[in-house]
Amino acid sequence: MISIDRFRKYMPILEWGKTYDKTALSSDLIAAVIVTIMLIPQSLAYALLAGLPPEAGIYASIAPIILYAIFGTSRALAVGPVAVVSLLTASAIGQVAETGTMGYATAALTLAFLSGGFLVLMGVFRLGFLANFLSHPVIAGFITASGILIAVSQLKHILGVSAHGHTLPQMLGSIFAHLGQINIITVFIGTAATAFLFWVRKGLKPLVKSLGAGPLLADILTKAGPVAAVVVTTVFVWLLGLNDWGVRIVGAVPQSLPPLTLPGLSPDLLGQLLVPAILISIIGFVESVSVAQTLAAKKRQRIDPDQELIGLGAANLGAAFTGGYPVTGGFSRSVVNFDAGAETPAAGAFTAIGLAFAAMALTPLVYYLPNATLAATIIVAVLSLVDLSILQKTWGYSRADFSAVAATIVLTLGMGVEIGVASGVILSILLHLYKTSRPHVAEVGLVPGTQHFRNIHRHNVETLPHVLTLRVDESLYFVNARFLEDLIQKRVTDGCELRHVVLMFSAVNAVDYSALESLEAINHRLRDMNVCLHLTEVKGPVMDRLQKSHLLDELNGHVFLSQFNAWEGLRGA
Amino acid sequence: MISIDRFRKYMPILEWGKTYDKTALSSDLIAAVIVTIMLIPQSLAYALLAGLPPEAGIYASIAPIILYAIFGTSRALAVGPVAVVSLLTASAIGQVAETGTMGYATAALTLAFLSGGFLVLMGVFRLGFLANFLSHPVIAGFITASGILIAVSQLKHILGVSAHGHTLPQMLGSIFAHLGQINIITVFIGTAATAFLFWVRKGLKPLVKSLGAGPLLADILTKAGPVAAVVVTTVFVWLLGLNDWGVRIVGAVPQSLPPLTLPGLSPDLLGQLLVPAILISIIGFVESVSVAQTLAAKKRQRIDPDQELIGLGAANLGAAFTGGYPVTGGFSRSVVNFDAGAETPAAGAFTAIGLAFAAMALTPLVYYLPNATLAATIIVAVLSLVDLSILQKTWGYSRADFSAVAATIVLTLGMGVEIGVASGVILSILLHLYKTSRPHVAEVGLVPGTQHFRNIHRHNVETLPHVLTLRVDESLYFVNARFLEDLIQKRVTDGCELRHVVLMFSAVNAVDYSALESLEAINHRLRDMNVCLHLTEVKGPVMDRLQKSHLLDELNGHVFLSQFNAWEGLRGA
Repeated sequence: MISIDRFRKYMPILEWGKTYDKTALSSDLIAAVIVTIMLIPQSLAYALLAGLPPEAGIYASIAPIILYAIFGTSRALAVGPVAVVSLLTASAIGQVAETGTMGYATAALTLAFLSGGFLVLMGVFRLGFLANFLSHPVIAGFITASGILIAVSQLKHILGVSAHGHTLPQMLGSIFAHLGQINIITVFIGTAATAFLFWVRKGLKPLVKSLGAGPLLADILTKAGPVAAVVVTTVFVWLLGLNDWGVRIVGAVPQSLPPLTLPGLSPDLLGQLLVPAILISIIGFVESVSVAQTLAAKKRQRIDPDQELIGLGAANLGAAFTGGYPVTGGFSRSVVNFDAGAETPAAGAFTAIGLAFAAMALTPLVYYLPNATLAATIIVAVLSLVDLSILQKTWGYSRADFSAVAATIVLTLGMGVEIGVASGVILSILLHLYKTSRPHVAEVGLVPGTQHFRNIHRHNVETLPHVLTLRVDESLYFVNARFLEDLIQKRVTDGCELRHVVLMFSAVNAVDYSALESLEAINHRLRDMNVCLHLTEVKGPVMDRLQKSHLLDELNGHVFLSQFNAWEGLRGA
Repeated sequence: MISIDRFRKYMPILEWGKTYDKTALSSDLIAAVIVTIMLIPQSLAYALLAGLPPEAGIYASIAPIILYAIFGTSRALAVGPVAVVSLLTASAIGQVAETGTMGYATAALTLAFLSGGFLVLMGVFRLGFLANFLSHPVIAGFITASGILIAVSQLKHILGVSAHGHTLPQMLGSIFAHLGQINIITVFIGTAATAFLFWVRKGLKPLVKSLGAGPLLADILTKAGPVAAVVVTTVFVWLLGLNDWGVRIVGAVPQSLPPLTLPGLSPDLLGQLLVPAILISIIGFVESVSVAQTLAAKKRQRIDPDQELIGLGAANLGAAFTGGYPVTGGFSRSVVNFDAGAETPAAGAFTAIGLAFAAMALTPLVYYLPNATLAATIIVAVLSLVDLSILQKTWGYSRADFSAVAATIVLTLGMGVEIGVASGVILSILLHLYKTSRPHVAEVGLVPGTQHFRNIHRHNVETLPHVLTLRVDESLYFVNARFLEDLIQKRVTDGCELRHVVLMFSAVNAVDYSALESLEAINHRLRDMNVCLHLTEVKGPVMDRLQKSHLLDELNGHVFLSQFNAWEGLRGA
């Protein structure tokens, strides 16, 4: 019985599958049609961004979407290639292989394989909490910087020049160096497509709504903008034979279902791609879970982050064996799916069928599709990710958070995505540790007429001349253990009529071994000076721990339940 | 005026120099004689441990001791080569040069130079607190493992074989592979010297005391043990010509004052040695400051850790330019200096003069000194560092601390000192973050007859059915922000008559931007469910920060000064 329950836990499909009915089926089918239409140009564009042949984008949307439907917990999440992960993929593989080579495509499969394996392992060991090490400001800064990098990386397609690089200075330098290659017709197509797509996003929706259409229809028309741009520019290039004038086009795309592929398993390649794969997994997971939780909250459903790891891991393993590249739950496609009324993960499976049909039947139609159009769809999509207001918001609230955002943005733009996000994470951890290394310590007194104690510098409180009461506002651990020793030494040598030091532990949530040794040292030194050391408001978990030590036996004073008890007890002492 | 004060701050000698008198002079002179006699064999031995020619150990004790006397704040600290830093030096330089080559000695100078520069920089920027990142258990584990490594590294000298390696398996494997080379006479000398020194340490002191001698005399006789062993074995080898029978001896040592030397400054060498230099600096600083603080506390003096950085940095820079290698404040020599009555750092300067005399006049006397005797003094000295009881103590108190110690010991022995200590530090930080990522949250109620609130599961308390009061036992920051969201979501969906959620912030010492966003999300969700969110006992610094955000304006409830106020206010609500 236990093994079946366990099996069920890893297969959420068994849960929602039981109650699947006709209503859900029709909702899911409608959502699938809408998402499929939107995904065709998007998949091609993201493959281009990742430096892969266009069909890789479509393949990466088929098997992964089905595997996520089986193992994932979100009802509306749509899994496939997304902008940030495509950028990370290009950056990681660019270091081990040349774009366009066989090795490049194999490295993409390997990256998806490693990423999938890592996600599944994290899920099995329930390590989803690791994603919490990415703070909100670091994520916001990283997404913004990635959006800028992606937009700039597409400029070369709009200008029709060949440029490369994975940081802002590299990209801009390379574009500048190749400015002589500019193709005017490409620039015209690219600029027109970008302007059109911006207008669709900003101007079309209000227009359609003002004509009396419902919000869903307005939304569908807006999302169909890229399809329209694709159709018009493709026909334009085909009719005028512009590819002979130097306009780069998508060209021949194989007409087939996703092929069975094997990732490269040489230890060298695995070694080189391991760190990028871990980074892609965690970034992809964080992005996907945020989307899934936002959508789930709207319908009062719950997401299990550890099961999500398994769902996304399975999706990536699927991508590795079917000609794809790393995938995750995408924001825009998931929102469309949700808004279009998807009820269950089956909507994803139907989308996969639609895309499989497209891969077999529709690929000849994109032969004349100009790369500049795909670049335009990417630029318009990612600029919505760019939000520099996080800098201003964190500046007003906390300089530490601001530093983490600013470092993440500057380093991601200047030194690449991997260094950028790693620095953001490390910096936010170090700033946190630094803050806790010099904790706030308040001398407190009794608020008259209550049993409540507050900082003597902020409130009008009563104090006793022979008692020094300190509220330590931090858990005591190795980073601040010595600080407390020094502080008490200093405070006690200052006052001569002092006979009692009371440490109010209401904000001490843990005492580690280093801090225990410091408390023992404080206790001994105070005893040598004929001063008693008392503890008050020690929390249950901290008390449990202290009882395993000698501190309480040797304590040259008492442990009081509340600060008020200590006040009463020491007033006449 | 300010610049003179500043100058004074960086030159503690100007402080104690003003009141220097005859009494202090005679105390300092006596202490210097005792320390000099003890330091001669010790310096030779530690140079051997570092893989350097014996005179390097003496040179490293002269200029550094004088520079520390000028810039350091401890009155009793004796600076020079110490066991752990010598081991770290051997491990670092062994990776860039062959023992015995010119490059090896130059690398030692460079290491001292980098280490000195780094310490001075840390002192100028007042970064002494960084040493706190080494927790007590990690230091204890590291010192114990280093003691074992050092003792094993000296076995080859006792056996008379050539072996190498920087980890326990490497050393033991290498000794085993060279067992055929064993020199029986060397084994005899080494074993006898070791046994004698153990007896001096354990048996001689009680014997001398029982004969009615004072503790200081007993101490001096004990410390003179190594000198006796050196004299006896040297004469023995010289008389019997044992060096012709394969017993390795110290040989010719140049008769000179410390030479002027220049560290190697090629970018390659600096790059390779930078990380080891930082590690040596921090370990050396931690060891030195602990010794200095222990001794200062006995005389109610104070140590300024940031000025100590400058003193130790100057000492290392001095070593770099006078043929030495990295140095720090040593435990045994400082204790001897203190016990012998040293009053001021001038005792150190007199010791330096004594050693300079030894370097010029006494070096021919150690020509026949067998390496095995030096190895014996090292083994006996470092075994007192080995203390595995820290494993048992931390096991009883906290599994997290135990894991950090155990990892430090195992990895230092198995993979070398650098990986060992780095893993210990990283592991203790990660364990701390992990603990704070899943904070303890207690539901609290009123302790009857008081205004004090405690955990409902540990105390008999009163609660209100329509109010849920949670005391969050951790600062709220990015690592646990999502945890709180999930927890409150879960608790609130459980109870249906619930109308108020009170978060008691007595243990919340900080709220970062990520946590602020989570609190805003919690507030919105509770409002959607018609539940009010209240905060109580918000500390001053946290309140200051929250007032810079929109949370308090949008809060669907109140902020109460104390939990009891909230109880009174919400009882009838």
